[in-house]
Amino acid sequence: MSLVFRRGISSMASLKKASKVVCIGRNYADHITELNSARPKQPFFFLKPPSTILLPGAGPVICPKGIDLHYEVELALIIGKQVKDLEAEDTEGAFDAIESYAMSIDMTARNAQNESKKKGLPWSIAKGFDTFLPVSNIIPKSAIPDPHNVELYLTVNNEHRQADSTDLMLFQIPRMLSDISKVMTLEKGDIVITGTPKGVGPVVPGDIMRAGIKVDGKEIEEGKIEVE
Amino acid sequence: MSLVFRRGISSMASLKKASKVVCIGRNYADHITELNSARPKQPFFFLKPPSTILLPGAGPVICPKGIDLHYEVELALIIGKQVKDLEAEDTEGAFDAIESYAMSIDMTARNAQNESKKKGLPWSIAKGFDTFLPVSNIIPKSAIPDPHNVELYLTVNNEHRQADSTDLMLFQIPRMLSDISKVMTLEKGDIVITGTPKGVGPVVPGDIMRAGIKVDGKEIEEGKIEVE
Ligand SMILES: [Mg+2]
Ligand SMILES: [Mg+2]
Ligand SMILES: [Mg+2]
Repeated sequence: MSLVFRRGISSMASLKKASKVVCIGRNYADHITELNSARPKQPFFFLKPPSTILLPGAGPVICPKGIDLHYEVELALIIGKQVKDLEAEDTEGAFDAIESYAMSIDMTARNAQNESKKKGLPWSIAKGFDTFLPVSNIIPKSAIPDPHNVELYLTVNNEHRQADSTDLMLFQIPRMLSDISKVMTLEKGDIVITGTPKGVGPVVPGDIMRAGIKVDGKEIEEGKIEVE
Repeated sequence: MSLVFRRGISSMASLKKASKVVCIGRNYADHITELNSARPKQPFFFLKPPSTILLPGAGPVICPKGIDLHYEVELALIIGKQVKDLEAEDTEGAFDAIESYAMSIDMTARNAQNESKKKGLPWSIAKGFDTFLPVSNIIPKSAIPDPHNVELYLTVNNEHRQADSTDLMLFQIPRMLSDISKVMTLEKGDIVITGTPKGVGPVVPGDIMRAGIKVDGKEIEEGKIEVE
């Protein structure tokens, strides 16, 4: 047990060395509806700085003053090699590029994001505060035979908030990696978070978020997040 | 000479390992006017992925299909240590945090950016294509006694396009580093680009951009950029 734990920690630390964290927006129809957003004709994405990454056990999410803090549970892909100009049809290439998975919570300063949207300003501040990306331990690739058929969930103080299958994604992983890699080359160690299902909402200091992933109804231990 | 050159190259390669590139928007009044933008009440910023960095001599800027490509010459700060929650009044702390400088061109897909602004979407794609951040060699800190009193310039095919003093910045460096570091911790090696003066405009494949920096009217050799 102790060995596994140490291995986990050491791989996790490497996550913070990601050269970028790319985040897919609006990738689940019911989440688009709940935020009154427009449905994208193609995947769009934004960046979170690696300084947002909060490793397991590294303390609480810090809520900045005056911020309406929202959770968004998301499946994260950890990229295993350089990817450039991948074709959307290249499903094998896309899956080859994935080294492993993790669960993540894309914490969002919702009021700041709404203001940015209104003013046509970047989202980087709303998405980019320190601790705004709690992650789980690394999930071995073999534990997720089909990333488009797993259940993501998130609870706040043990109340169910998000629970949906990744089969609801509007754009699947090969299309995401294709669109991203035609703009910015993905490097080994980069992280791609794949969008959140419906049920996002606010948390306040003291709330306990738990998130995770189920494959065939079975929880994956490495995918559990518990964070204040 | 050869030794200096090799040293230059080796420090440059480390630039690509920046954990983030933070970019100040709308920091010169006349540039705000030329883009019909609103004047910000406080500094705002966005991220370019490190994959945008184009080292000296590493080839041309790639213009993606259908993109209206604009140049923006900017003074870049290379951060020398971790900076978190810096106070805006802490001028000494801000200058201590700067390890060196570089010149940079914040290449922008202007049509994509305009569409993102209109739709309230992130700027990451418009600012984030590979090669969208040509940089100069590293400028030693001692070569720039006062970063708020230097001349930046950019020419396209030897025609003057941008030439202004950094004394026109709306928000100076301590305020920028303060605002950024209260959102996201800056790490050693991170790059902050400080906004562009007026005169931005389009370039097409084959155009030659030259940019640089003058201190007391004298060109700094390390600050020269020449890129197609
Ligand atoms: Mg952005
Ligand atoms: Mg999200
Ligand atoms: Mg700029």
